[in-house]
Formats: sequence, structure tokens, C-alpha cells
Amino acid sequence: TRSYTITLLPGDGIGPEVISVAKDVLLLAGSIEGIKYEFQEKLLGGAALDATGVPLPDETLSVAKQSDAVLLGAIGGYKWDKNEKHLKPETGLLQLRAGLKVFANLRPATVFPQLVDASTLKREAAEGVDLMVVRELTGGIYFGKPRGFGTNENGEETGYNTEVYAAHEIDRIARFAFEVARKRRGKLCSVDKANVLEASMLWRKRVLALAQEYPDVELSHMYVDNAAMQLIRNPKQFDTIVTNNIFGDILSDEASMITGSIGMLPSASLGASGPGLFEPIHGSAPDIAGQDKANPFATVLSAAMLLRYGLGEDKAAERIEKAVLDTLNRGFRTADIYSSGTKLVGCKQVGEEILKSV
Amino acid sequence: TRSYTITLLPGDGIGPEVISVAKDVLLLAGSIEGIKYEFQEKLLGGAALDATGVPLPDETLSVAKQSDAVLLGAIGGYKWDKNEKHLKPETGLLQLRAGLKVFANLRPATVFPQLVDASTLKREAAEGVDLMVVRELTGGIYFGKPRGFGTNENGEETGYNTEVYAAHEIDRIARFAFEVARKRRGKLCSVDKANVLEASMLWRKRVLALAQEYPDVELSHMYVDNAAMQLIRNPKQFDTIVTNNIFGDILSDEASMITGSIGMLPSASLGASGPGLFEPIHGSAPDIAGQDKANPFATVLSAAMLLRYGLGEDKAAERIEKAVLDTLNRGFRTADIYSSGTKLVGCKQVGEEILKSV
Ligand SMILES: CC(C)[C@H](C(=O)O)[C@@H](O)C(=O)O
Ligand SMILES: CC(C)[C@H](C(=O)O)[C@@H](O)C(=O)O
Repeated sequence: TRSYTITLLPGDGIGPEVISVAKDVLLLAGSIEGIKYEFQEKLLGGAALDATGVPLPDETLSVAKQSDAVLLGAIGGYKWDKNEKHLKPETGLLQLRAGLKVFANLRPATVFPQLVDASTLKREAAEGVDLMVVRELTGGIYFGKPRGFGTNENGEETGYNTEVYAAHEIDRIARFAFEVARKRRGKLCSVDKANVLEASMLWRKRVLALAQEYPDVELSHMYVDNAAMQLIRNPKQFDTIVTNNIFGDILSDEASMITGSIGMLPSASLGASGPGLFEPIHGSAPDIAGQDKANPFATVLSAAMLLRYGLGEDKAAERIEKAVLDTLNRGFRTADIYSSGTKLVGCKQVGEEILKSV
Repeated sequence: TRSYTITLLPGDGIGPEVISVAKDVLLLAGSIEGIKYEFQEKLLGGAALDATGVPLPDETLSVAKQSDAVLLGAIGGYKWDKNEKHLKPETGLLQLRAGLKVFANLRPATVFPQLVDASTLKREAAEGVDLMVVRELTGGIYFGKPRGFGTNENGEETGYNTEVYAAHEIDRIARFAFEVARKRRGKLCSVDKANVLEASMLWRKRVLALAQEYPDVELSHMYVDNAAMQLIRNPKQFDTIVTNNIFGDILSDEASMITGSIGMLPSASLGASGPGLFEPIHGSAPDIAGQDKANPFATVLSAAMLLRYGLGEDKAAERIEKAVLDTLNRGFRTADIYSSGTKLVGCKQVGEEILKSV
């Protein structure tokens, strides 16, 4: 048996509920495939703020760094919304991403055939959508300096941030995306705003230069405003999208909503080495927290990504992915993906049904 | 009779074709309502680059500044895509916006009942969408300094831009948006990324402070990634949206695509005083330029916005808007909005039909 240490970060809101389901699924799929885990549960986000006064305690980061992979539930909530920046749950997540150096964020947007009608897009537009957003995660305007508040020449208050990319930051995420595209349908669309921003001009130049090394990948470029439109007009035109941190934040959420079921979508954040960070793309949904209404599918699928991309345990990953499809096929749905003719159940029961299918 | 000077900037691609139609419509509606115009046609974008070597000739800007309103077709094309930044058609447009100090960009996204099926969104989601994006247009990362290319401490090339807002820039666009919301359905949603960016934190703080003066307007705040999702999930929840330059670029294009007919959507860019700039939101469509295939409706509706917001000539504006609806009702369509059972015609004939309805 192979053995791995996994850091669990339940976080806030519905986080603990969905992590609990995912943990059980990891355990069962692992035991069938000869995998053992040591789980370490640590604090992040609002939960960490309440207990320790900071959103990312040192202990959480050091345990996470030493583990083989990190599985995160969700962070944030109304309670901490007015906190100053360094005391926001979100800041803890950004510090965790930076601390783990996970520069590549993989966000699949897949339309599940069972759920295609949940999309506000017409069936013919939504059906068969299967795209991957590769978002740069540790650079750009999220981390660029200088940043802060100042005073301009008229004595007025200003707020400012810096969008900045260095050549190697672009190269490593572009390479990553070319490799992803190569394993998918061989099409990569790089999204930027190179008609206006210098940071995007460098982005486009470096991506173009790297394309030489990937003659088998069909590369295109699109301005971000056009990409926001094309995702709605014809999402099927996309295979793999690579873009910067802020554009990736916006476009990956847009792409996920096109599927109609963001409660189903996982994500993986990977670095050059060290543990990856795996989390559902949905938020902490404080309004339904603790009510057994949360949709755990996305976190379970994040656990599958953890097995595949984090641990190289493809078989266990596939087992989980099949169990999710099987559970959907057997008609089990949480409220967010319910439609008439299916079975409305809570978070826990979805978990039990997935376990039956593992 | 009232008399106005109008600067016409046909620009590139399909620009000249749609401007020609809009000019005829302005003339006819004006003559009925007792309005005279003096038109001055000037160069902008690629057309200006080819003729003068710069994308915004001094003469164009000074004539535009001295006129009562500016009507623009579209700019850009493959031909100039690889130009250096100061020689891009887009740079001319940005210089024009800055030169005219038009800080407020109004972009309506309206679903025309006649065209609702052109949307990739389901009828129940698209029908009745009527929202207005108020985009800050002369600040933020589009114009912020420092910007450019540099070298970091490792000797690597960098590209950087500055997202910066000063208090008065936020206040004036927020006031503008509160006023717009007040004249619409009284709901304003301010979109930012205040959980990450200092520039957005200041934005939110100033918008909140101003809300005191507009107790009749219902204000909400949304993160940009969530807004990108909500526009797809339920666009009808929005009345007026106010946001910064780059988020407005992305979200207004997304919103326009939700309507399914971006060939129909006008825009207005206004300053504190001086002429406004009016243009369709679509691009220059170089692939169909000169083939009489362009959709002139958006430019004609931009001319109506010019009359209403630029000249205060509401009657003539209404006359044009009614003529557009009437032409749609009589079944005339360009290729981009054609559906079976309607009449497919070219740009010129749409123009003639609108004239019949004016
Ligand atoms: C919570 C927030 C800081 C975060 C981000 O903007 O990256 C979230 O929106 C995401 O996409 O994971
Ligand atoms: C052409 C480009 C510079 C422009 C912008 O980004 O503002 C366009 O996309 C727009 O929205 O009018």
C-alpha cells in the first residue's frame, strides 16, 4: 500500500460538510486501490480568524507544505466581510496559494449530460461543453507591487494595484497550458488585453515564442472582452484557455456558470513541485451552512483531481469520477441541481450514495 | 431650427457603411423635428494611420472637441494588429476618449422581443433583459501610470500596468450611475474586487459614502467574478451596473452577448461638459467590410443616443428608436440577426427601410 499525508482545510460555511463527504470517499476509494492516508485537519479563513486572529496560521501553512496534497472546502462569509484586508478570509487563501507556490490553477468547465438543462444556455449551446481554464494563480494584479492607498498631487485619496508579469511567470504557466492542451483536444486559446496593456503585450509575445515548441498544439489569441462574449456565444469552440490571474478569476467563473451547475465543478492548483491545492470552485454559501443542503459533488471531484494530479493515483481518481456519474445516473440531486423527476437529498445522503457507487 | 455640428468618424472596416446609414437617418429625423446639422468627417484608427501615420490626428481631436457631438463607426483590423502600441488603431480611440474627457460610458444591454431567439440563453432567461452598464472610461488600468516594460532583479523582462483610482474619479462616475439608476428602475449594482484589490476597496468605500445622497436608489455590491456568473444565471436581476474601466470592458461585452444581438447595441460616452462620443459596441468586422452585409442598427441607435444624451433632442431620438423597432417589426434583418421567416437584406436596404419608418 502507498501512503500519503493529506491536509484537510474545511474552512467556513458549507466547507466542513463537503470536506467530510470527500474524506469518506477518498478513504473508501483509497482502501480499494491500496492507498492509505494520514489526514491532518487545519484552520483556514474565517475559522482561523476566529480561533487564532489570522486567516492563515503558520501551523496551517507548514503542515500543508509538508503534506502530499491539500484539500480545501471553502472560505469566507458575511461575518468577516468588513474586516481589513490582512484580516479577510480571502487573504488567507491568497497567502496559502503563494506559500504553496501553486502558480497553475486548473478549472474545468464540463457540462454533465445529466444536468444540461440546469444551464440557462440553450441545450444546443451547452451540450457537450468541455473546456479547461488554466489560470495563472500567484502573480499579476493579485500580488503585484506597489499596491495600497496613497494621496495624489491634489491631496486626494487614491487606491492602486500593479498588474505585473515577468517573463518566467508567463513562460511557466504557458508551458503548463500547452501540456494540458496537448493531453486534451490540442487547442489552446491565450486570453489577454494586448491591444491596451503592456503586461498583456509581454504575455502574448512570450506565449507566441513558446508555441514553436508545441507545433502539435493549435494556438489562438483572444482579447478578454471578446472571450467573455465567445464563452456565451459558442462555448464549444474552446478546449483549453490560458490567462492571467484576474482575467482567469472572471472567465473561469463565467465558464462554470455556463455549465449551469457550479456545485459540480472542482479545481486543482499546482506548482513546480510540492503539494497541490484542490478545492471546489463554489464559495462557502453561508446562508445554507450547517443545514445539510450543500452539494458535495464538486469537493468529491476535487478529491479525484487530488488523486490524479496531486498523487498520480489515476485509478482511484477514475473510481471516484465514475461513482459521481453513477450517483447522478441513479437520480440523486442536492437542491441546487434538482429538477423534477430526480431525487432531492441532502449533502450527507449524496455522500452515502457516492460511497455505494465507489 | 436648432443647428448642431457633428463630427463623423467612420473609422475602419464596416465603419463607413454603418456611419453612412446613421447620417441619413439623423438628417431625416432632424429635418422633421426642425434640426439642422453641419457634419465634419474626420479620420480615426487604421484609416488615420494609413493616411497620416498616427491613429488620432490632431485635427480630428480638435474638430471633435469643437463639435456638439461625435459619432464613431468602428476602428481596427488585422492589418494593424501587429503595430506597436502607439501605432495601434485602439490607441487612437483611447486618446480620443481621454481627449474628450468622456469618463462615463453607457452601455445598454437590451433584449429586443423580436430577436430574443437570437440569444444562446433560454427564452425565459433572456426575455425582458434591460440593463445598463455604466463603465468608467478614462481611468483605471487603461491609463494608470507607471506602465511599460522593465527588467526585474533577475534581469528578466517584465510588463506592467497600474490600476489606480483617485477619489474624485470614483465619485463622479458613481454619481453619474446613481442618476442613471434613478431614471431607470432605481437599482444600482457596483461591481469591484474589493476582497483583493486596494483600488476596489477605495471604490467601494466612496460608492458607499455617496449612497447617502441617493436614498431612493437601492445599492448593492458584487465581486466581478460573481457578476460574470450572475449575468448568465439571471441577467434580469440587474438594472444599472457601475464598474471600473477594465471590468466594464469585460462585463459590458458579456452582457451584450446575452442579448444575442450585439449588432443592435449602441453606446454613449459622456463627460462633465463638451461633446459626447457615440458608437456601436460592435467592432469593425474587417471580414465583411465593403460587402453591404454590416448591421447598421447599432450605429443608428447610437445616433439616437447622440440626440438624447448629446443634444437633448429627445423627440428626434424617439423618432429614430421607433423607426428601428418598426423596421424590425416589418421583418427586415441583416445576416447576423436573420432567422427563418424574416427578410434578409443588406446594410443599405436596412437603412432605406429605417428611413421609410422615420
Ligand atoms: C476568494 C477570492 C480571493 C478568490 C480569487 O479571487 O482568486 C476566488 O474568487 C477564486 O476564484 O478562487
Ligand atoms: C478597442 C478597445 C481599446 C476598446 C476597449 O477596451 O475599451 C473596446 O474593447 C471597447 O470596449 O470599446
